[in-house]
Amino acid sequence: MEALADLVASLPAGVVATDPATVAGYRFDWARDTAAGTPVAVVRAEDAAQVQTAVRWAATHGVPVVPRGAGSGLSGGASAVDGGIVLSLERMRAIEVDADCQVAVVEPGALNAEVKAAVREQGLWYPPDPSSFEICSIGGNVATNAGGLCCVKYGVTTDYVLGLDVVLADGTLVTLGGKRIKDVAGLSLVKLFVGSEGTLGIVTRAILRLVPLPLPPATLVASFPSVVAAAEAVVAVRRTLRPSMMELMDRASINAVEDFSPRGLDRSAGALLVVQSDAPGDARTAEVGAVEAACTAAGATEVVVTDDPAEGEMFVAARRAAFPAVEARGALLLEDVGVAVPLLPDLLAAVTEIGVRHGVEIPTVAHAGDGNTHPIIVYTAGDADSERRARAAFDDVLRAAIRLGGTITGEHGVGRTKKAALPEMLGDDVMALTRRIKDALDPDGILNPGAVL
Amino acid sequence: MEALADLVASLPAGVVATDPATVAGYRFDWARDTAAGTPVAVVRAEDAAQVQTAVRWAATHGVPVVPRGAGSGLSGGASAVDGGIVLSLERMRAIEVDADCQVAVVEPGALNAEVKAAVREQGLWYPPDPSSFEICSIGGNVATNAGGLCCVKYGVTTDYVLGLDVVLADGTLVTLGGKRIKDVAGLSLVKLFVGSEGTLGIVTRAILRLVPLPLPPATLVASFPSVVAAAEAVVAVRRTLRPSMMELMDRASINAVEDFSPRGLDRSAGALLVVQSDAPGDARTAEVGAVEAACTAAGATEVVVTDDPAEGEMFVAARRAAFPAVEARGALLLEDVGVAVPLLPDLLAAVTEIGVRHGVEIPTVAHAGDGNTHPIIVYTAGDADSERRARAAFDDVLRAAIRLGGTITGEHGVGRTKKAALPEMLGDDVMALTRRIKDALDPDGILNPGAVL
Repeated sequence: MEALADLVASLPAGVVATDPATVAGYRFDWARDTAAGTPVAVVRAEDAAQVQTAVRWAATHGVPVVPRGAGSGLSGGASAVDGGIVLSLERMRAIEVDADCQVAVVEPGALNAEVKAAVREQGLWYPPDPSSFEICSIGGNVATNAGGLCCVKYGVTTDYVLGLDVVLADGTLVTLGGKRIKDVAGLSLVKLFVGSEGTLGIVTRAILRLVPLPLPPATLVASFPSVVAAAEAVVAVRRTLRPSMMELMDRASINAVEDFSPRGLDRSAGALLVVQSDAPGDARTAEVGAVEAACTAAGATEVVVTDDPAEGEMFVAARRAAFPAVEARGALLLEDVGVAVPLLPDLLAAVTEIGVRHGVEIPTVAHAGDGNTHPIIVYTAGDADSERRARAAFDDVLRAAIRLGGTITGEHGVGRTKKAALPEMLGDDVMALTRRIKDALDPDGILNPGAVL
Repeated sequence: MEALADLVASLPAGVVATDPATVAGYRFDWARDTAAGTPVAVVRAEDAAQVQTAVRWAATHGVPVVPRGAGSGLSGGASAVDGGIVLSLERMRAIEVDADCQVAVVEPGALNAEVKAAVREQGLWYPPDPSSFEICSIGGNVATNAGGLCCVKYGVTTDYVLGLDVVLADGTLVTLGGKRIKDVAGLSLVKLFVGSEGTLGIVTRAILRLVPLPLPPATLVASFPSVVAAAEAVVAVRRTLRPSMMELMDRASINAVEDFSPRGLDRSAGALLVVQSDAPGDARTAEVGAVEAACTAAGATEVVVTDDPAEGEMFVAARRAAFPAVEARGALLLEDVGVAVPLLPDLLAAVTEIGVRHGVEIPTVAHAGDGNTHPIIVYTAGDADSERRARAAFDDVLRAAIRLGGTITGEHGVGRTKKAALPEMLGDDVMALTRRIKDALDPDGILNPGAVL
């Protein structure tokens, strides 16, 4: 491919890789999408100008561009495309903290954990905290409008993005927003690019809002006889309180975590809730007390409270370990369905029923306080019947969420693995509206083709 | 106009008004834009279907549609257009509170204060609080992504919009988002419509996120010798604290308020800061104490603290009274410029210098904790020289904000009165991007033509 030689020549040595071994390492993200293609090259850009060069080349030659952060996406949003290039931002990871403005100016390849660590040195905090925060990049967080455990009180990625530099489909670099906190001049373009999964442009810099560090939290762990009882406690708590975390693990995920790395969780519990409060002083005592009362009223069989942050973090780490723990059990199909909080018991009941009906194991964890659940469908790779049942269950879970007026993805993104269900959720008119915006910004469809749309 | 008869016939009696007296009442919003045109009709729609009917008629005949909420906009975003229709949403004001989901489902004509009152009955709170909250509509708040006094801690309108029903330029009604808190399925369309000032579609329903009622606040009022000293206190406070309000009044606005309705403010102060804390228990004492120390260190000559919410509200009401009070002094040009918080002293110093240079009075109030200021330029209507100097000062204030990397509008919107400065702020590439989205969604340009773009 002669054109490819032009790309290689137009960028510094080492930026463009075309050797099969390197390229193979960029085919998949964590969704392990079996339909992922093989790219002709990987561009590991070092700055925005190199991103522009690569995109201009792709635009000229009509080559698909799949942007990629840390590759930790769970929906195949960074699955490579045959004949395309993967544009990796992993080398662009500068972090500049402006403590006076309470912002961090961050390149997209910086990991969420790296940003958190850099701002913590100045007594500041970047709240969004996907479970994968130690391995996921800010660019990917922006692309998916990532959530996490603290969202129930502190909101999601879009709430913290004040500005973006974006390379558009024709290679133009635009600077949107800035360090100012309030700004309504023109359309809300920053917000449009957040969550656009690389289909409208490629983020090369983000200005992230920071807040003062929260107090070390108190942690409450409650055991319930069933997920539905636990979900009912969540609904009750959310009516009047704003805990800083409210996570759920069902029995299957508890046992998967205990099998994987024992932490002394109650294997016999139908579900655990892990709740944190970072309210100050007396308010914390009141909040934790109210949560405990709600849990007991909903049927909790045991409630443990600790003010020791390290002990609390142990429970949270157990919750975060659910993905790797379940992954050790087989191949996975990851769900990310969400509903309005009062419908959480219905959604969890539906997931249980679907698992039974298809004969598949579906360990489930949830950012319960937000109504956002992660049923994890386990199957045996290479066993066609197992995979068929898993896929049927996957589709049924998506449909259950849609039927309850919910979403097929609360924080992971549509990517490629949930794309088929998007029209059913959004309807023809919203799909057409989406398509008009996509066509306006990427008329030749070179940016992450096959994702979302 | 034969076509107009079709419009009248297609809607129930009383919905379409064409008589000159009624129509004249819909030419202006609070910006009193002298360039406002005269519409051919006012459509006071009673439901979304009637909005669709009117927009379809307008699309068929190429007639401009200016959407209008309560007409309290300050940037001429609802100025009527010659030959167009005004589509008033004032009759659509249903409010349905879903306490379990912690949302309110609201029609666009409902006033902000009506929503606040309805949800308060259930112990809930809708935070965004423009100073005009008693007379401004939710539709207008969504259209401008309105801010207010509590934004410094609680964020702006877009942070509370979970879902929208929108009538598009061809009359299609789309439902975006819903009662679920987290949702990343597809593009962030809800966020795109928030702040689009009626140029992309007409909102017919909003699903607003609610939070538990905050505690009654403590209020601190500090007198400073100058606005710059007050601004420096703001910068110091914002480095480590998150007060629930942080407002500034300069000497001219203090005196305007005292002239208009005396409240015992210190007329000799160079500036006042009105700061509130709604932190619970001991945390409040600590927060108020830290704010007091920062004010004193920045040169405050007097600091008064009260835990009495009624007394505190008196000071806040004085701050809110600044617009009507200054309006009593003459004709106004309203600014809404903002900068990153550490640049607030520079912006306020620039405004003072501009006032002196052009020989115009510019009373200034500010949502200081967000870096968002409202210099109010006063001139004598009918005095050509006074008006010329005021307009020159207006342009210079916009330029000063741009030069400081700030925005020409923090919360009022671009509308028609700030449109000329938008390209200077955003640059050609961002303007072109904006135009592409506008053209994709409203190819014939019938929605609020002349606003923003």
